[in-house]
Order: sequence, then C-alpha cells, then structure tokens
Amino acid sequence: MVRILLCVSYDGTGYCGWQFQKEHRTVEGELNKAIAALTGEEVEVIGASRTDAGVHALCNMAVFDTDSTIPGDRFSYALNTKLPDDIRIVWSREVPSDFHPRHVATEKTYRYHIYTGEFMPPTKRLYAVHESRPLDIEAMRTAAAYLIGEHDFKSFCSADTSAVTTVRNVKNVEITRDSDELTVSVKGNGFLYNMVRIIVGTLLWVGLKVRTPEEVKEILEACDRTKAGPTMPPQGLMLADFKFLE
Amino acid sequence: MVRILLCVSYDGTGYCGWQFQKEHRTVEGELNKAIAALTGEEVEVIGASRTDAGVHALCNMAVFDTDSTIPGDRFSYALNTKLPDDIRIVWSREVPSDFHPRHVATEKTYRYHIYTGEFMPPTKRLYAVHESRPLDIEAMRTAAAYLIGEHDFKSFCSADTSAVTTVRNVKNVEITRDSDELTVSVKGNGFLYNMVRIIVGTLLWVGLKVRTPEEVKEILEACDRTKAGPTMPPQGLMLADFKFLE
Repeated sequence: MVRILLCVSYDGTGYCGWQFQKEHRTVEGELNKAIAALTGEEVEVIGASRTDAGVHALCNMAVFDTDSTIPGDRFSYALNTKLPDDIRIVWSREVPSDFHPRHVATEKTYRYHIYTGEFMPPTKRLYAVHESRPLDIEAMRTAAAYLIGEHDFKSFCSADTSAVTTVRNVKNVEITRDSDELTVSVKGNGFLYNMVRIIVGTLLWVGLKVRTPEEVKEILEACDRTKAGPTMPPQGLMLADFKFLE
Repeated sequence: MVRILLCVSYDGTGYCGWQFQKEHRTVEGELNKAIAALTGEEVEVIGASRTDAGVHALCNMAVFDTDSTIPGDRFSYALNTKLPDDIRIVWSREVPSDFHPRHVATEKTYRYHIYTGEFMPPTKRLYAVHESRPLDIEAMRTAAAYLIGEHDFKSFCSADTSAVTTVRNVKNVEITRDSDELTVSVKGNGFLYNMVRIIVGTLLWVGLKVRTPEEVKEILEACDRTKAGPTMPPQGLMLADFKFLE
C-alpha cells in the first residue's frame, strides 16, 4: 500500500464544491470515481482545501492509498484519461504513508478576480465578479495592510465554522490592477470558512468609500462577523498556489 | 423607424452558433427575444458574422429596426438587462436606415488560442485548444507570411460554402507566444467558411513539421481543400475585433 499525493486543478463552475456529496457532482466524488476506474479500488481521497461550490483551483492537494503498481509520478497522466475535462491532475507523487494534507504546515495563496470595466465580458463571467463603480485602490491597499500578520480573524469568518481557533497568520494581501482586471491575492498558512471572500467584500467597501481603511482595523479588532463586509460570490475565487512547508 | 447597430460580445460555449435555429439556442435567437422583451416588437436582427457553434466574440455586429423611442446609445444598457449573462452588448448606436453590416467594407480580426503546456488548465479549456507537442514557431511564421495579401483561399474553405468568390484579402497573420499560450491572429476584409480554423490547422502542421513552410505556398496555389490541414475545433476561435471602414 502506498500513499499518492495529487496536485488537482479544476474549474469549479460545474461542481457543488470539493467535498463529497452523495446526490451532487463534487470534485472529490469525481476523483474517487476516476481512481476506481483506473485501479479497481474503492477509495476516498483526503483533500487539503475543501473549496466551496463555484470556487476554482489551479492547485489543490489530495492524497489516497492504493495497492496499484503504477509509479507515483504516472498517476497524473493515467487519471487525466479518466477525469472530466474540468478537472486535471497537474502532477502526482508518492508520499510517506502518514502524510496528511491538512496536518502539515502549508502556505496557500488565494486570488480573487474583479472585473472593473463597464460591462462583464461574457468569456470572463465564470472566473470573476463585476464591479464597475469607481474604486479607490490606494485606500484598499492601506486597509489590506491592517490584515497582514497573526490576528484573530473571527470578523472574517462565516458563523457556521467548526474551527477550534479563529487565529490565522496572513502573510500578504496584495492588490494588483491590469487594465480592467483587479486581483486581490491573499497568502497565508490557513484560512477560515469564507475568510478570503469576506476580506475581499470588506476591502471593496473601502474601495467604494463605504468604510475608511482605519475602520478595517476596528472591524478586525471587533471579532464580530456582523461588522465586516459581505461574503463575495464564489466564482471570483481561485486557489492559486499551495505549498507544503515540511 | 430607426436602425440600431449593436456591438455584441458572447461566450459561444452554450450556443449552436450565431444564426437563428428554431429548435436550438443561438445568439441571434437570444437577441431577437431580448429586443422583443424590451420593445414589444417582433424583430430579426441582421448579423455581420454568422459564427459557428462554440466560437466566441468580443465584438460581432448586428442591426435591427425599431419604432422604440429609446436613444440609440442606450439600447446597450437596456438590452443587457434582458440578455443572459453569456451575451453582452458592448455599445449601441443609431445608423442610417440602409446600413447593412454585410454590405459595407470591414476589417475583422480573429484570434485563435492554443495552449501549449503539458496539460490543459480546466479554466482555459472552453477558450483554447491543447497542443503539447513541440512547435517550431519560426517555421509557422514563415508559412503564415505566404498567406498575407489577396489570394484565392479555396484550399482554406470548407466545401459547403455559398461564397460567390473564394478570393479574400488577408492583411496580417501574426503568431504570438506568452508563456504557454500561443495566439494566431488573422486580420482581413472577410473570411470564407471555416477559413481561420483551416489556416490554423495548416500552420500547426508546419509547427509540427508535418509540412514545410514552402508547402503552405503550394497548398494555397492548389485551390483544393483536401491539400490543407484540418479544421481546428471552434472553442479556440474568437472574433476579436471588427471595424467598418466606411
């Protein structure tokens, strides 16, 4: 029995999220099916980030155990022949049998895409949200700086979390603009439920002058979800990078 | 009665092409429905480029006649509230009542997108095709140069054309690479049925060393569809720019 680690890329549009649901199409469900089709084994992959319905990933991580003799680095090619074209295995490799993708230190980067032109180009609509009102980007950057570092992010966490602690370490929040495309990149060692989407909703408040940058510091300190901005829609969110630190 | 010109952007994924079909979802059909919903008038828009199923557009053109008192430049906003989100009107304006988008001189640019990395990223799969074999880009550029100018493009036209003449003027063929994304841009005053997709299929033959650049000159001169490369799939194609020259 060996444990295989998969780097998984997917278009979340057609999925009810990562986590297996009996009645619905999920990324985990499709992976389990593809592995069964390839190896004949009934498996349940363990995912690193259980992304929500509609959220995309360039690189999420998952492990599974197998008795197959397929070399670890060949699983990517073999599984891609069994998977639907909105899921792709970027690479695969063998890992120690006790390696668990949620029990090791990680660094993840999420990117949130906002289209700021007058109308949303149809071919971008599944991968960004639309905000055509003028945005004060510098104010958003000032506000973002308050979020960097180790803080209790309770204000930026949906109420239905099961997290033991709401303290997280945000390493960077970067706001970049390329013509009409605004990207908010958030890098950290872990994220609470809906945390990036709520951070972006709050930074947009600042961009729209609904709140000042300094009020974001107060929102953070309040540890109260009702103080922060709205949870942004899922299609703008992309799990863009994922590193194991051990 | 006034004639309104629309610049129409769409994601072709969900459509059986531009041209109206009673039983199928088409861009033209959706435009007719949206105009009817807005003005109460039964109209049939006249499109400039009748793109195929799965082909995208940043800017296609269409006209329709109306007795509505909505100012010409406001139709874009009004129609966008009635259209599905995979079609957007970029702008609208009133034109002379005899203006016909297929009977005036135009300059159109099509772009064909090819992803050359090892696997196709799921979020790009609807807007590009995948070619991971090594490509000789310089050879493709040499071949492309033979196509520029006024030629009989019969070799690059699907047999079921209704065109009176197969002579067209290609103003430019440009091949650009940005990391793993290869784009073939073809600019011209008009295009035969499937012409860009067959040009790209033939240039890919050259990139893969199935044909030499010089053989593309011979293919052009042969005026024989069976000599040219395959018709590439529709999803890589985008009508990217459209200018009326009069």
